[in-house]
Amino acid sequence: MNPKPLKVAVIGGGSSYTPELIEGFIKNYEQFPLQELYLVDIEAGREKLQIVGELARRMIENAGVPIRLHLTLDRREAISGASFVLTQIRVGGLDARAVDERIPLQYGCIGQETTGAGGFAKAIRTIPVILDICKEMEELAPEAFLINFTNPAGIITEAVLKHSSIRTIGLCNLPIHTKMQIAQLAETDPANVDMEMVGINHLNWTRNIRINGVDRTEDIVRMFDNASGLSVKNIPDYKWGDGFLASLGMIPCSYLRYYYLKDKMLKEQQEALKVKGTRADAVKKVEAELFELYKDPELKVKPAQLEQRGGAYYSEAAVDLITSIYNNARNIQVVNVRNNGVIPCLGEDVSVEVRCIISSEGATPMMLSGGPLPAEIRGLIQVVKAYEELTVEAGVNGDYGSALQALAIHPLVGGSSLAKAVLDQILAENKPYLPQFFK
Amino acid sequence: MNPKPLKVAVIGGGSSYTPELIEGFIKNYEQFPLQELYLVDIEAGREKLQIVGELARRMIENAGVPIRLHLTLDRREAISGASFVLTQIRVGGLDARAVDERIPLQYGCIGQETTGAGGFAKAIRTIPVILDICKEMEELAPEAFLINFTNPAGIITEAVLKHSSIRTIGLCNLPIHTKMQIAQLAETDPANVDMEMVGINHLNWTRNIRINGVDRTEDIVRMFDNASGLSVKNIPDYKWGDGFLASLGMIPCSYLRYYYLKDKMLKEQQEALKVKGTRADAVKKVEAELFELYKDPELKVKPAQLEQRGGAYYSEAAVDLITSIYNNARNIQVVNVRNNGVIPCLGEDVSVEVRCIISSEGATPMMLSGGPLPAEIRGLIQVVKAYEELTVEAGVNGDYGSALQALAIHPLVGGSSLAKAVLDQILAENKPYLPQFFK
Amino acid sequence: MNPKPLKVAVIGGGSSYTPELIEGFIKNYEQFPLQELYLVDIEAGREKLQIVGELARRMIENAGVPIRLHLTLDRREAISGASFVLTQIRVGGLDARAVDERIPLQYGCIGQETTGAGGFAKAIRTIPVILDICKEMEELAPEAFLINFTNPAGIITEAVLKHSSIRTIGLCNLPIHTKMQIAQLAETDPANVDMEMVGINHLNWTRNIRINGVDRTEDIVRMFDNASGLSVKNIPDYKWGDGFLASLGMIPCSYLRYYYLKDKMLKEQQEALKVKGTRADAVKKVEAELFELYKDPELKVKPAQLEQRGGAYYSEAAVDLITSIYNNARNIQVVNVRNNGVIPCLGEDVSVEVRCIISSEGATPMMLSGGPLPAEIRGLIQVVKAYEELTVEAGVNGDYGSALQALAIHPLVGGSSLAKAVLDQILAENKPYLPQFFK
Amino acid sequence: MNPKPLKVAVIGGGSSYTPELIEGFIKNYEQFPLQELYLVDIEAGREKLQIVGELARRMIENAGVPIRLHLTLDRREAISGASFVLTQIRVGGLDARAVDERIPLQYGCIGQETTGAGGFAKAIRTIPVILDICKEMEELAPEAFLINFTNPAGIITEAVLKHSSIRTIGLCNLPIHTKMQIAQLAETDPANVDMEMVGINHLNWTRNIRINGVDRTEDIVRMFDNASGLSVKNIPDYKWGDGFLASLGMIPCSYLRYYYLKDKMLKEQQEALKVKGTRADAVKKVEAELFELYKDPELKVKPAQLEQRGGAYYSEAAVDLITSIYNNARNIQVVNVRNNGVIPCLGEDVSVEVRCIISSEGATPMMLSGGPLPAEIRGLIQVVKAYEELTVEAGVNGDYGSALQALAIHPLVGGSSLAKAVLDQILAENKPYLPQFFK
Repeated sequence: MNPKPLKVAVIGGGSSYTPELIEGFIKNYEQFPLQELYLVDIEAGREKLQIVGELARRMIENAGVPIRLHLTLDRREAISGASFVLTQIRVGGLDARAVDERIPLQYGCIGQETTGAGGFAKAIRTIPVILDICKEMEELAPEAFLINFTNPAGIITEAVLKHSSIRTIGLCNLPIHTKMQIAQLAETDPANVDMEMVGINHLNWTRNIRINGVDRTEDIVRMFDNASGLSVKNIPDYKWGDGFLASLGMIPCSYLRYYYLKDKMLKEQQEALKVKGTRADAVKKVEAELFELYKDPELKVKPAQLEQRGGAYYSEAAVDLITSIYNNARNIQVVNVRNNGVIPCLGEDVSVEVRCIISSEGATPMMLSGGPLPAEIRGLIQVVKAYEELTVEAGVNGDYGSALQALAIHPLVGGSSLAKAVLDQILAENKPYLPQFFK
Repeated sequence: MNPKPLKVAVIGGGSSYTPELIEGFIKNYEQFPLQELYLVDIEAGREKLQIVGELARRMIENAGVPIRLHLTLDRREAISGASFVLTQIRVGGLDARAVDERIPLQYGCIGQETTGAGGFAKAIRTIPVILDICKEMEELAPEAFLINFTNPAGIITEAVLKHSSIRTIGLCNLPIHTKMQIAQLAETDPANVDMEMVGINHLNWTRNIRINGVDRTEDIVRMFDNASGLSVKNIPDYKWGDGFLASLGMIPCSYLRYYYLKDKMLKEQQEALKVKGTRADAVKKVEAELFELYKDPELKVKPAQLEQRGGAYYSEAAVDLITSIYNNARNIQVVNVRNNGVIPCLGEDVSVEVRCIISSEGATPMMLSGGPLPAEIRGLIQVVKAYEELTVEAGVNGDYGSALQALAIHPLVGGSSLAKAVLDQILAENKPYLPQFFK
Repeated sequence: MNPKPLKVAVIGGGSSYTPELIEGFIKNYEQFPLQELYLVDIEAGREKLQIVGELARRMIENAGVPIRLHLTLDRREAISGASFVLTQIRVGGLDARAVDERIPLQYGCIGQETTGAGGFAKAIRTIPVILDICKEMEELAPEAFLINFTNPAGIITEAVLKHSSIRTIGLCNLPIHTKMQIAQLAETDPANVDMEMVGINHLNWTRNIRINGVDRTEDIVRMFDNASGLSVKNIPDYKWGDGFLASLGMIPCSYLRYYYLKDKMLKEQQEALKVKGTRADAVKKVEAELFELYKDPELKVKPAQLEQRGGAYYSEAAVDLITSIYNNARNIQVVNVRNNGVIPCLGEDVSVEVRCIISSEGATPMMLSGGPLPAEIRGLIQVVKAYEELTVEAGVNGDYGSALQALAIHPLVGGSSLAKAVLDQILAENKPYLPQFFK
Repeated sequence: MNPKPLKVAVIGGGSSYTPELIEGFIKNYEQFPLQELYLVDIEAGREKLQIVGELARRMIENAGVPIRLHLTLDRREAISGASFVLTQIRVGGLDARAVDERIPLQYGCIGQETTGAGGFAKAIRTIPVILDICKEMEELAPEAFLINFTNPAGIITEAVLKHSSIRTIGLCNLPIHTKMQIAQLAETDPANVDMEMVGINHLNWTRNIRINGVDRTEDIVRMFDNASGLSVKNIPDYKWGDGFLASLGMIPCSYLRYYYLKDKMLKEQQEALKVKGTRADAVKKVEAELFELYKDPELKVKPAQLEQRGGAYYSEAAVDLITSIYNNARNIQVVNVRNNGVIPCLGEDVSVEVRCIISSEGATPMMLSGGPLPAEIRGLIQVVKAYEELTVEAGVNGDYGSALQALAIHPLVGGSSLAKAVLDQILAENKPYLPQFFK
């Protein structure tokens, strides 16, 4: 691509996921000859960065690839001159996540870290940070791609698209996950699977499924209706209901259980909260264990336990993406990009999650081969997107009214008085992370 | 307009509302020199038609206008050669309405005759009948306007727009009602009020309020937030919530209380059901009393009690509309018409409720002077419109899948299993009226 | 509308048309109680302003209306606090117009002051001046309406819409002219005529013609094909061609003769140029005679000779428009406004000439009742609009490339080398008026 | 793809181009294991079919691939059960082409077989035939792809898209030609070239040119402005004009010389006509020579002389396309498909020529990575597309009015009287081929 040394900065480099990324860079080294890898974190993450950074160093050495690894708290240094900046940050850490999951449940709403009121809270905490990163990139690496997989990825991507000149692509592991599940059901290799995923991040549907070029949609949809074990790790595997998927003709992503099976999911969450606390609490334990493992100086590869952690395929997706850009690969991947009319019933400037051609241009969406969104899914996408637009506005400007209206129309919150109560508590408990609301 | 005798057919002529219509025709006689007025009803309504028809005859005689009145059960005769066909039918009568209001409540959903699952049931009962009427019009009065005020007016209008060549305009009394309320708050004559009402039937908002040409929106919105007595008769007058309207900057129509104040409204309905039965039960009593009054041979004008009935301004709106068309009046009225891009975030071929110029062409929408719909209201309109589109499809084709998906995405129902349960009971209890589902 | 004195500023007040405007203000005084009327002009127009101003004063006195008249060269004073600013300027005067008409003819192209290369030259001379006026308005009268009838009115309106916050309406006399012609053919009063005019300024078509509410389109179109005397004053009255209008089903505006009858019109122009010079030369004579008339201290009304001048109905249209805004009249007028999707095959932000409701809001477009533009006229409108967009860009930024591309695609110029030759000569001969190109 | 034998039908199999196709099938045999190849022609082409068919047989035998070749005049037999139907027909043969090229020149218009009035004539001759083929396909091979490279390919493709259920892709050799030229200028392999071609068939522009992933647009555009030999064979290689391409920022396709350099091209054509007759006359000679060559029983490969013939890369493009569909290749090719919003300023249902992903689904367009069409090229595309839409309508329905309006707006004809004269002569001289006009 260009003669300057190939440099990648990973913001939130102290994450427990980092070994997966490192593994990806090692595996792809031949196609993506990474020279400078910066793992950067904030003061509060110094220790984790040290631990995971040392593991990364051992992994790289063990693999024998000439990647130069840098651990730093200086974000500007990390970003400067990079070709790719990856963000895997978690503003407020797992403590904030626990709050996100708990508050909505107190009001009888779904408590989830990426969707509903919990996702809203996470979004407004994250937006100021991501836009700061973008400002630094505009100054220090204006040509770099920002690859974001911080959730809620759709909202974060949209904030960047609307408020920065930086080229960004939002990444989620659901698309690759769904392809794997389809391949498994069809007993074939994922490379033989074509499918059209449409919608927005964590609210999308898969249709037009072809196996080796032959349309198998009806077939596969029926299998999904009946099969077990097809939800992502962190979402209960409830059935969709007799014939519901068949009349829909598409496969909803796992997160759509929060919409279609709201009552059941809410009950499950409320009971789980009593028995074992929030999901964040569980993750905290897993993380602690992982970091203990990472400290072992004999560990020189990604430990198998990390795969239990939840975010399977994330790093694979990320490394595949940047390798494809770097090599002008012109292959197809499902990512979050500016709509630009691909989904004509949404605004031009919002983020959508669709099939794209990945090349040195970045991600160029393919038109929907299955035609415009049918009414069955269109309305849900539109109302949640309206919520997302208001959330971006609230997150950027700290506008109380936008925040209130955002929650008032969200299908998992809804209503004026409920929205106000939930919002007020979110603002109160997240005050340190919301400078835009407390100016 | 043309030399043939001016003829109007009122389908559902035996309605208790008819005296209002008659009063309207009498008042407007000079501008709208009606010659042939047909009141038509079905066999089951024969007695009511007789009673209300006799009253109508006395009213016309008393007024001394040369309108020739015909009472008939022969719909084809009534329609043949008419310039305007008005539909105020209620398929299944008030008994069916009681069912519409009761079933959703059994499942913890809002039970309302025009919106939610109740409105859905009413829609699929009405669509086959209205399309039969249209077929007769295509044959016997292809140039006539169909003025529909049967609820859910938006869905019924859309069914006609999509499945018939007949020119139709859907009518609701909410727009005129809202204008009256604004006039009252602003202490002015309704003629001095300009406002932009946007959205779809029973799901719309009023913005850009001018009094004598001066923008008073902010002001009036604040008054609405605080004032009492501003809901339509059949909807409890709950407040919208502290500052909610101010941050919205618009006045929601009364029916939006079912969305914004769902929990409160649901509770009220559930309690009311126990104490006094459904709203249909209450209306039955009122109707019985009205028909007793109508029988009085000395009654020669519209009885004052009719105004208590609920549908205030309906007939005024209807007669104003057809008088304006007849006289090519080029005035502004809010009615239900084909979208055609007025609300660009909805499909071209759906029905919307917007400001129109009324002339001999019919209703030509004005562009939105307040710009595209803001996210605050856009998403709700879109998701409910998606429900409406699926309902039209289900109502026309009797397609179970479309019906299921319609209810699964409606904000007042929602979810796959709940939708299925509610739908199955609706189908079971409405079987005689749903030939399209039980072929 | 508001309590401050009602003030109007007329920029280019020294125009020979001004007596018509004055007559309009006098006639409409009751509905539009104008208090302060400023006629403003530039130094070069001082004498004309004096002459026409004195006539205006005599007319006002003679009519006995209490309008206070001010003649000034101080534009800021004229604009400050005005409710309406009218622009009827001619940058470079009739000499520049003569150049506009001559240059294209030298290259075998139509030479016309509003369309083709001549209109282009006039546009780029006028844009900097109109935007200066807007800047002053933003400071001194931000709530005022700018009513522009300087040609090319569509391009000038678009420049203001895109580059200023001032509310503007572009005005042309063609719509009222066409209505008059239709009324004459149908032997009825213009008030009984409804018609849909669609397109952009000086490139529009009339369809859906109703007389007293009855569709007479086919009929009237046929009459237009055959009748004489139906072109505006300054355009030769050539027939459209056997059956051409019938297959089109619409009436093209007179200026469309330059497109549909290009060869004939070009020949006529080339011959006229030899024999009698440009149209500008003829107008100069008329103007000189008019000003002689105006000097007569006994003249106290608009002289009949002015109506021979060409711009019939302009002032009537202008005074009607501002009276309607002032009185919130909610009537229908065809004016130039922001598209906003009324003509969906054009950009949102361009100017179009369509039916609007005139109220205190300004001009709110009506949707096209005749449906989207048919292919027969759509392509021409689109290619000329593309030319207009490039011309606005060139006129604002002085961008040579945009100017070149504008002329290269104009149907009355066309081609890269011809465009370059014409453009270079236009720039050379208009240098004093094109600061944006000669920075 | 499926178990039935892989069959291809070539309509117009007697064309002199056929050896290229055969060569393509032979080269690609491994990826595209063609079993049954039908060459079909009409009675008038019997002899040519025999000659070229025998050569094809020798080529196949010589190559040793097990393709079974069938020569037939029975189109239904050829189509039945085919997976791909290729159309390379020429209705009326080269004699008709000569007429197409001559008539416009008689009226001072560009005479060209694919664009302007000549292309119009060819289109209305071809449309009835292609729709007949589609009807047979609907019956005998409803799942087959129709790959059309009969010109004007954009119009023919649009006629099929609008009036048939058959999946079709229109093919032109300009895209591959342009890529080759860019590769040559950039001194690289065509596989390293990425470019975005936008527009409609024979009216498109190339932008966003990347060599090995690096943007080189400005650079390459400048080279095009100055280089020689970059037009396709049959179009004179005139320069675009000083700096014209630079200010455009894109490379126009060769056919755009007829628009941008109309006067020069017209003059050249008029002179050529006098000296050497039409291009059709020249081609006739070449064809006669080719068929002489083909008769040689020792000839067993495609003769080198065929490459001089003009349509370079056509067969390569065609065979690449069907091989890619068959193998679900997911690669990028520029073809003619239904717009569906890829170019938002054109109708949804028209044909456009854009980058597509080729897979077993057919051709799925990529969104424009360079954004919406700039005004510089948008207007031309729109006006020519409007002409094309009217031409499709005229070609299908034989509607004189649509035909007249089509020519009246075409930039290379234009005007009502000229259009009428040209049209009347086209109809008169093509009567035997225009059953739809002479019913």
